[in-house]
Amino acid sequence: MLKMTTEQLIDCLEWRYATKKFDNTKKIDPQAWEALERALVLTPSSFGLQPWKFIVIQNQAVKEKLREASMNQSQVTDCSHYLVIAVKEKTDGEFISHYIERIAQVRSIDRAGLEGYKKIMMGALVMNPKSPENLTWATCQGYIALGNFMTAAAVLGIDTCPLGGIVPAKYDEILALKDSGWKTIVACCAGFRSADDNYARAKKVRFLSQELITHYL
Amino acid sequence: MLKMTTEQLIDCLEWRYATKKFDNTKKIDPQAWEALERALVLTPSSFGLQPWKFIVIQNQAVKEKLREASMNQSQVTDCSHYLVIAVKEKTDGEFISHYIERIAQVRSIDRAGLEGYKKIMMGALVMNPKSPENLTWATCQGYIALGNFMTAAAVLGIDTCPLGGIVPAKYDEILALKDSGWKTIVACCAGFRSADDNYARAKKVRFLSQELITHYL
Repeated sequence: MLKMTTEQLIDCLEWRYATKKFDNTKKIDPQAWEALERALVLTPSSFGLQPWKFIVIQNQAVKEKLREASMNQSQVTDCSHYLVIAVKEKTDGEFISHYIERIAQVRSIDRAGLEGYKKIMMGALVMNPKSPENLTWATCQGYIALGNFMTAAAVLGIDTCPLGGIVPAKYDEILALKDSGWKTIVACCAGFRSADDNYARAKKVRFLSQELITHYL
Repeated sequence: MLKMTTEQLIDCLEWRYATKKFDNTKKIDPQAWEALERALVLTPSSFGLQPWKFIVIQNQAVKEKLREASMNQSQVTDCSHYLVIAVKEKTDGEFISHYIERIAQVRSIDRAGLEGYKKIMMGALVMNPKSPENLTWATCQGYIALGNFMTAAAVLGIDTCPLGGIVPAKYDEILALKDSGWKTIVACCAGFRSADDNYARAKKVRFLSQELITHYL
């Protein structure tokens, strides 16, 4: 496995910024996009449950509609690929069983041997007194995917811009997620920065490491 | 900037798994750990607000205490560096002002020019009728950091294991976060897999891409 050096990694992460202006003539090549989709699929999740859907929009008409539900931010229509992350509204017994089936299939193991694991997941997510919070749990998983996606893109030299200020309920309508059991939580543009995006040259603002990091040596 | 190829990225992400057994004789070298801390600091966040603290534990006695609050999972004590992510319980006006100060300092700009940006953040996080939910917002940001951290580690060939099944309130006591305004949300072990961790050889279970990904072409 050919790894990155620490310098390469930091160079890529310093290079990354929330791109405000994309060059709408530049498209991510299909092989690179395929790798980013694979990265999304490989995102780690709690129990491995993957309570998410990834919606990838290249269609300009759909992007236009989403832009209207995104405070008219130009990145939505100018980026190459627009990613919307939706999560399971209610991770229930049915979804957990579906996952158990998939484990049995991929690892060629007997369902019976997975009963214990199923009970743990049911206990944590369905029977738990806090189980109504399982949308929050699923949302957190979706943000792991977002973090993974932006870093994966950066190490490939692909720009991203995570999008706050979207109206998730409108996204759900536009993307036919309404009443589907899945809810839009966040979105992220991917593509290439425009040469005249001045934000690319702005100094990164971070609190001091000594303020953010505590060590127990 | 020397980027990764798509094959290198996917190799690293396929190599990654939630390590169940760490080799407690192997330590992450200081330069690589420093890069991972820098990666954490560089994590993107909503408005750039960085509502987080990263606590890094190498101290064995502290790890032992945390293990007791983690369903006795051996990874806590066997890993090289144990990362705990805490987030701001209430992102309030004071915190937003602190961030504004930092922007002014880093970019050498006048505070007055940042009033508009401050108002937007205040509106979204403090004055909003949903502002009591800003702990959920901060928690989501913490999960971006977790996703970024695991991917950054993977591209450096460093193993990780995100830890569910921890008791955050006990962590807060052990790490002196109680009543500090910061709350533990999640933790992640980092280090090197033990040669006899059979999970490393188990097939990854993922739903089919066509189930997870929808395209609007």
